Amino acid sequence: MLLLQTVTSAQIFGSEFLGTMLLTMLGVGVVANALLAKTKGHAGGPQFINWGWGIAVMIGVYGAYRTGGHLNPAVTLGLWAGGKPLAAGIPATGTNIMLYIVAQMLGGFCGAVLAWLVYKRHYDEPGEPGDKLGTFCTAPAIRAYGWNFLVEFIGTWVLVIWVILSGYTNIASITIDSTGISNVTGTLIGPLGVMLVIVGIGNSLGGPTGYAINPARDLSPRIAHAILPIKGKGGSDWSYSWVPVIAPLAGGIAAGLTYQLFW
Amino acid sequence: MLLLQTVTSAQIFGSEFLGTMLLTMLGVGVVANALLAKTKGHAGGPQFINWGWGIAVMIGVYGAYRTGGHLNPAVTLGLWAGGKPLAAGIPATGTNIMLYIVAQMLGGFCGAVLAWLVYKRHYDEPGEPGDKLGTFCTAPAIRAYGWNFLVEFIGTWVLVIWVILSGYTNIASITIDSTGISNVTGTLIGPLGVMLVIVGIGNSLGGPTGYAINPARDLSPRIAHAILPIKGKGGSDWSYSWVPVIAPLAGGIAAGLTYQLFW
Amino acid sequence: MLLLQTVTSAQIFGSEFLGTMLLTMLGVGVVANALLAKTKGHAGGPQFINWGWGIAVMIGVYGAYRTGGHLNPAVTLGLWAGGKPLAAGIPATGTNIMLYIVAQMLGGFCGAVLAWLVYKRHYDEPGEPGDKLGTFCTAPAIRAYGWNFLVEFIGTWVLVIWVILSGYTNIASITIDSTGISNVTGTLIGPLGVMLVIVGIGNSLGGPTGYAINPARDLSPRIAHAILPIKGKGGSDWSYSWVPVIAPLAGGIAAGLTYQLFW
Amino acid sequence: MLLLQTVTSAQIFGSEFLGTMLLTMLGVGVVANALLAKTKGHAGGPQFINWGWGIAVMIGVYGAYRTGGHLNPAVTLGLWAGGKPLAAGIPATGTNIMLYIVAQMLGGFCGAVLAWLVYKRHYDEPGEPGDKLGTFCTAPAIRAYGWNFLVEFIGTWVLVIWVILSGYTNIASITIDSTGISNVTGTLIGPLGVMLVIVGIGNSLGGPTGYAINPARDLSPRIAHAILPIKGKGGSDWSYSWVPVIAPLAGGIAAGLTYQLFW
Repeated sequence: MLLLQTVTSAQIFGSEFLGTMLLTMLGVGVVANALLAKTKGHAGGPQFINWGWGIAVMIGVYGAYRTGGHLNPAVTLGLWAGGKPLAAGIPATGTNIMLYIVAQMLGGFCGAVLAWLVYKRHYDEPGEPGDKLGTFCTAPAIRAYGWNFLVEFIGTWVLVIWVILSGYTNIASITIDSTGISNVTGTLIGPLGVMLVIVGIGNSLGGPTGYAINPARDLSPRIAHAILPIKGKGGSDWSYSWVPVIAPLAGGIAAGLTYQLFW
Repeated sequence: MLLLQTVTSAQIFGSEFLGTMLLTMLGVGVVANALLAKTKGHAGGPQFINWGWGIAVMIGVYGAYRTGGHLNPAVTLGLWAGGKPLAAGIPATGTNIMLYIVAQMLGGFCGAVLAWLVYKRHYDEPGEPGDKLGTFCTAPAIRAYGWNFLVEFIGTWVLVIWVILSGYTNIASITIDSTGISNVTGTLIGPLGVMLVIVGIGNSLGGPTGYAINPARDLSPRIAHAILPIKGKGGSDWSYSWVPVIAPLAGGIAAGLTYQLFW
Repeated sequence: MLLLQTVTSAQIFGSEFLGTMLLTMLGVGVVANALLAKTKGHAGGPQFINWGWGIAVMIGVYGAYRTGGHLNPAVTLGLWAGGKPLAAGIPATGTNIMLYIVAQMLGGFCGAVLAWLVYKRHYDEPGEPGDKLGTFCTAPAIRAYGWNFLVEFIGTWVLVIWVILSGYTNIASITIDSTGISNVTGTLIGPLGVMLVIVGIGNSLGGPTGYAINPARDLSPRIAHAILPIKGKGGSDWSYSWVPVIAPLAGGIAAGLTYQLFW
Repeated sequence: MLLLQTVTSAQIFGSEFLGTMLLTMLGVGVVANALLAKTKGHAGGPQFINWGWGIAVMIGVYGAYRTGGHLNPAVTLGLWAGGKPLAAGIPATGTNIMLYIVAQMLGGFCGAVLAWLVYKRHYDEPGEPGDKLGTFCTAPAIRAYGWNFLVEFIGTWVLVIWVILSGYTNIASITIDSTGISNVTGTLIGPLGVMLVIVGIGNSLGGPTGYAINPARDLSPRIAHAILPIKGKGGSDWSYSWVPVIAPLAGGIAAGLTYQLFW
């Protein structure tokens, strides 16, 4: 890293909060557009949703450029497990890791609330409670916790190993949208690259569980669903809720350890 | 800014006029292709339309590279509110802001006329008056002015905060398609980046109102719809017309102020 | 241009021939995949086709990098009309222009033959003669030669003005996929940028005529259709054939003149 | 090549193994998502599948950046036939070629096993044996070995000629996502560029055979299909299996020779 910058705790918090808020506002939004009644994107289908999520991450990374654009506790813990700083000038101390994760979880919650406001009148329409929940958080296509865990674990492993390879391997300045730039400015995750990686994980590994691969994207909106006065809502499926939290964290840490072992 | 260039008023006007003309010609065109009878893109769906709009903005930005590729009064006012110049060598004076906005509104009108000429024989076919109007300007999926306003406000806020973050934050040279380049040549908005941001806003926030997020994209084509002798047209929905004008302007200014407060 | 290179006539011919052959092989191929019976992309729809054409141009530009990746007489004549060299080290002399155009027309023919071979067994299946012709060349959705001409004229104007703006405006190094590179190496057209521009023209202006915007893409495959022993083929629609030749050439020249007038 | 690096045999093996494992895990995955019962991407269609495969290659290239991201014996042999090193610092010796190919074939096998685990519960659902096989390997739309061979030959020729042109032509630094970078760091294949090329080959040439264009993508998962205890599976279609092995190898070598002859 050429750049020695001092990033304050408030800046770390604000950066990850804003980025993750953008992420879940846009991500919950695209599913709402596809699933809720009377929207212009109704029945948009999986391709529509996956591009929407990909670009949601891209825009979130811009919002959180100062802190590397993690937006995801699994990325933060993966970098720590990989022996890397969280971003240029931000060492992986316990305090910083906590700051990142708290900001991500709160940002994820607020983004879901904003998406609900954007689609408020469409949430008010009659509709399946499961569809309304499905705009906030993921659910397995076939409920089988062990297999669901495995899917989320592998999906997150792919994401985080890509983040590390594209951002921290000395030789790996392989796309301009990633490390070449990040080495100069401290941005870890290339916005264009990560967008495509998210679309790819969605298309390829999203079939069984809807690719949460991020606790701040799944648990925080689930809490929003539980709290908000959504018309005609059902339960928040707490029995599944631990899978898209624990599996991504484990997958991210595993990616960090994989990197330490093989590179 | 390294570059001190003198841009004349005629150049400013011509640049934003041409860019916004390209924007609405291509943008109105893609909706016409999807909605009108007998076209080759008939029933193309929301994904088809959103990519078309994204690339319409991209091509418009090339056309208006000299002035930063605003194409949108909300961007122009957002930069002013953010304390930024409008582009390299173009300070945010009252005269320049007026020049930008007048050029954008006129360009938006002329682009809509051109799109109508391109699809003239398809407008002549029988069809729903609402569909014909829908090619020119947006309409809410569920009419509720307060909520519709909120949606357009938030959508524009996302667009303009991205423009500022990607184009004017010193540290934020995070994609090659944006500031790295713009600092050298005076182009503010990265064409590839903004294309994806438009697709993302369309997929994620476009469900309730069709994401006008730009008065020059909505009001100017609406005026064209009112004036042009379109066969079988209905009214121009003037009762809604103020929402996609006032809300984007407010959202753009809010983004500028957000930037001033937090960065 | 920093680079003074000597490009031989054989190299010019080979470059444009190979590039245009790739272009029409892949472009005819994607329409064959969407329209012919029993293919894996059957009924792929306009979005499928437009991305296919966009990438076909992108790959063709790589093949013809040495000559700027024109692949299209309208681009070649547009640069001449704009007072520009055809590529770095290749002045717009009458001989060079002829070389380009002959290579493009022959390459376009051979690419169509290759696409026919690729889909030979699918052309052998029963099917509408109009669909089989539609894989080779364009046809208007509503036949009205004047309006069809206008559409092809405007579509080509957009393409060529983009080529010139992105490749030859001193100030316009606005995307990395285009001029920054081209000024150094002699490649005029940015592969990624032109891909998106083609998709955009297809989505936005392709509704009435199917966006030929290139005589080498339309007339040469049409001749191939007339000559090849395609099972169950009908006529080659010669009455329309002049439109996607003359209109693109006129639109390309108009773009060159527009550039001379306004920049 | 500016960079003289020493890459050990273990590093070569590990790099191509990991990259090809990612490739087939994500590639088999996207077809499983589209074809198997009860997935969230069910009936996603060819566009969904082609983008998934394109991004699968992109992510695989990141994983194998150290060895140029071949992931495909046809690329490795094509570079050898073109008189090129396999990557920066890795000459095309017989030993290195063997190392690449063995790593690719084993990686392709393991990736297919992982994809099967990800979609295990969906493979357990009732479904056509042909669809289950179709997630692992390709099958012709119309069985005609000679024509099928031709299609795979041409598809691979396009891929490998693009790889060589984008990565090894001195003058061809035409996109930032490719050679500019590769010359510096030793990465041969640009991740973004190859993603688009795969989507394009899929859309344009994938109609008759499903574009294997890579023995490690077709034979290795086919072996996995034969070995794994997949519920309700049928035969592994060994009578066709040689086509997507021999034709890609021949097409890749032909591309290398084409390059030698014409550049």
